[in-house]
Amino acid sequence: MPTRLSIAVLPPKAMIPTLFRPATWEKLAAYGTVVQNKSDDCNLDEAGAKTLLADADVVITSWGSPPMSAEVISHAAKFRLHCHAAGSVKPVVSDAEWERGIIVTSAAAAIAVGVAETTLGWIIIAAKQALTANEATHRGGWKEQMRFPAGDLTGRKIGIVGASHVGRNVINLLKPHEVEILLYDPYVSEAEATQLGVRKASLDELLRNAEIISLHAPSISETRHMINRNNLKLVQDGATIINTARGSLIDETALVEELKTRRIWAILDVTDPEPPAPDHPFRKLSNCILTPHIAGTVKTGRLRIGDYVAEEVRRFARGEPQRYRVTREMLSRIA
Amino acid sequence: MPTRLSIAVLPPKAMIPTLFRPATWEKLAAYGTVVQNKSDDCNLDEAGAKTLLADADVVITSWGSPPMSAEVISHAAKFRLHCHAAGSVKPVVSDAEWERGIIVTSAAAAIAVGVAETTLGWIIIAAKQALTANEATHRGGWKEQMRFPAGDLTGRKIGIVGASHVGRNVINLLKPHEVEILLYDPYVSEAEATQLGVRKASLDELLRNAEIISLHAPSISETRHMINRNNLKLVQDGATIINTARGSLIDETALVEELKTRRIWAILDVTDPEPPAPDHPFRKLSNCILTPHIAGTVKTGRLRIGDYVAEEVRRFARGEPQRYRVTREMLSRIA
Repeated sequence: MPTRLSIAVLPPKAMIPTLFRPATWEKLAAYGTVVQNKSDDCNLDEAGAKTLLADADVVITSWGSPPMSAEVISHAAKFRLHCHAAGSVKPVVSDAEWERGIIVTSAAAAIAVGVAETTLGWIIIAAKQALTANEATHRGGWKEQMRFPAGDLTGRKIGIVGASHVGRNVINLLKPHEVEILLYDPYVSEAEATQLGVRKASLDELLRNAEIISLHAPSISETRHMINRNNLKLVQDGATIINTARGSLIDETALVEELKTRRIWAILDVTDPEPPAPDHPFRKLSNCILTPHIAGTVKTGRLRIGDYVAEEVRRFARGEPQRYRVTREMLSRIA
Repeated sequence: MPTRLSIAVLPPKAMIPTLFRPATWEKLAAYGTVVQNKSDDCNLDEAGAKTLLADADVVITSWGSPPMSAEVISHAAKFRLHCHAAGSVKPVVSDAEWERGIIVTSAAAAIAVGVAETTLGWIIIAAKQALTANEATHRGGWKEQMRFPAGDLTGRKIGIVGASHVGRNVINLLKPHEVEILLYDPYVSEAEATQLGVRKASLDELLRNAEIISLHAPSISETRHMINRNNLKLVQDGATIINTARGSLIDETALVEELKTRRIWAILDVTDPEPPAPDHPFRKLSNCILTPHIAGTVKTGRLRIGDYVAEEVRRFARGEPQRYRVTREMLSRIA
C-alpha cells in the first residue's frame, strides 16, 4: 500500500459540483485525504492557501485560485503535484514551483473536448454552405440563389491553424469525414504531421487553399493579429473562417472590411474585447455568425475537468506519469 | 477464373463522372465488360434499355432510368444483379424482377453518409444553442440575452426517429460525443437497440424527453405527418427539431404555429412541397433554419455512390453476398 496522499482542494465549496461529478469526487477521496477550502467565496487569499497546503502532497487549483507563490509553497514541505482544474496554468504557477520540480498539470485538454466539438459542428455546416443556403431561402430563394454552391465534406480542404489540444481534437473528430487537412503549426514536424494524418503548410498556403479555416492557436504576443489585412486577401471566395480560440488572433478591423465584401464567412465565438461593442459590425453582418464564448464546456461537459484531475491524481498515487503535464519550457507557447 | 460478367450501365454518359471516380470506373471494367448507354440524354426508354440489357448479367440504373419492367427483362435472360446507383429503388423495380429472384441493391447507404454528416453538424450546433446565441448577439446582446442557455453535448438527450441508413450513421457519428440517444423505430428490437447503444422509446416519450429531435424515417403513408399538432405540444422549450429526411413527415402548418411561439427551433433541409412558397413562414421565422435539400451528397460525396455500386459488383463476381440488398418485403418500410 502506498502512503495515503494529502490532497488540498483550493476552489471554494460552491464550485466543487461544477467541476466534479459525485462519483469523481468519491474517487478522489479514495486516493487520499481531501483537505477542502470550506469557503463559499470564490477568492482564497495566499494566507488561506498556506493553511490548506500545510500537509498537502497534491494541490488542486482552479479559476480564481491564488498563485502558488514562493511564500505560499515555502510552508508546504510535502507539495509535489499541482493539478490545475482549469485551462491556463499561468495565473497560478510560480518560478519557485518550477525550481522545486513540482509536477504541474492543466485541464486544458478537458476543456478542449467541448471546443473541438463545437468547431466540428461549424466545419460541417460551413462545408455544406448551409449558412449561405439559409440566407438564400430566407430571401425567398432556393438552391439556385445560394451565393456559393452547396458542397460535401468529402475531399474538402480544411485548414487547421495550431495543433493545440483543441486543434488535435478537431483533427481527430474530422477523421470519419474524409476531408483533407492542412495544418499550420511551426512546432509540428513533418513526421508528426504524417502521424496526425495532416499536411503541413505555411499560414499563407493554408489561407490560400483551405475552404474552411479554423483557428486553434494560443493567444500569445507572436499570434496577435496573425490573421490580418495582408493575408485575409489570400482567402478564397466562399471560404469560412472559424475562431473558437481567442479574439486577439484576428485583426478585427481587417476582418470586418473583408466580410463587408460578402465574399467570405466568419464564425466567431471569441472577440477582442468580449463582448464586442453593442453596435459592432460583427453583430450586423449576416455573413458573420457571432456566439458569446460558448464553444467550450459550459454545463455537463465541464465535469470532464474533474475527471481529468482525478486521473492525474490516480496516476500520481501509483507512481505513473501524468497525462497533461505542463513544463516551464512550454509556457511561452501556450496561453 | 469466374466467367467474365456483362455489365449494362443505363445512366447516360454525361452522368457517369458524377457517380464514378475514374478509378472506380476502371475497377468496374475489371469485373466485366461494360456495355454503356452512349446517349447524353438523361432519359432512356424501355426499348433502349432492352437493347442494353440483351447480354447483361448486371444492370446499373440511376435517377431517371426506366423501370426494369416484365417486358424489358423478358429479353434479358442472363440478368441476375440490379444495382441502383441512387436512393429509392421503387421507381426502377418491377414484380417481374422479384419473381425472377434478381438481386436488387440500392445506393441509399452511400447517400446516407452525407445526410448523416450534415445532421451531425446541426445536432452539435443545436446542442450548444449556438443559433439562439447568434440571434442574441445580432440583437446587441451577449450570453445573458440568449433565449435558452448554452449547453454542452455531453450527457444531452438526442432523439433519433428512424434507424434508417441515415439514422444509423448519425448514431455512429454521435459515438465520440457522449450523448444519450433515444430511438423511435417500431422495427428495431430491444436487443438491436442495445447493440446500437441507444434506448428504445415511443415517439411521444422521445418528443417529451429529447432536447434535439432528428427525423430519419422514410416517406411512406404511415409516416405522413408523424410530427403533428398533437405531439408537437410534447416537445420541450428550447428543443430543436431537425429534418433532413422528407417534408411529408411533418405537418408544416402545425410546426409553423409552434415556431411562432418561439419556444422551439426547427432546422429543415426538406419541405412539402419543395421549394416552399416564396412567402412561406419557414422563410421568415428566425428560429427556422431552412436549407434547400442540400444535406445529402451534392458534389464529391456523390461519388461514394459509384464506390458502393462497384463493391456490390465485385462481391457478385466473387459469389459473395451484397452489402445493401433490397428485398420485396422491405419495400413497404423504405422510401
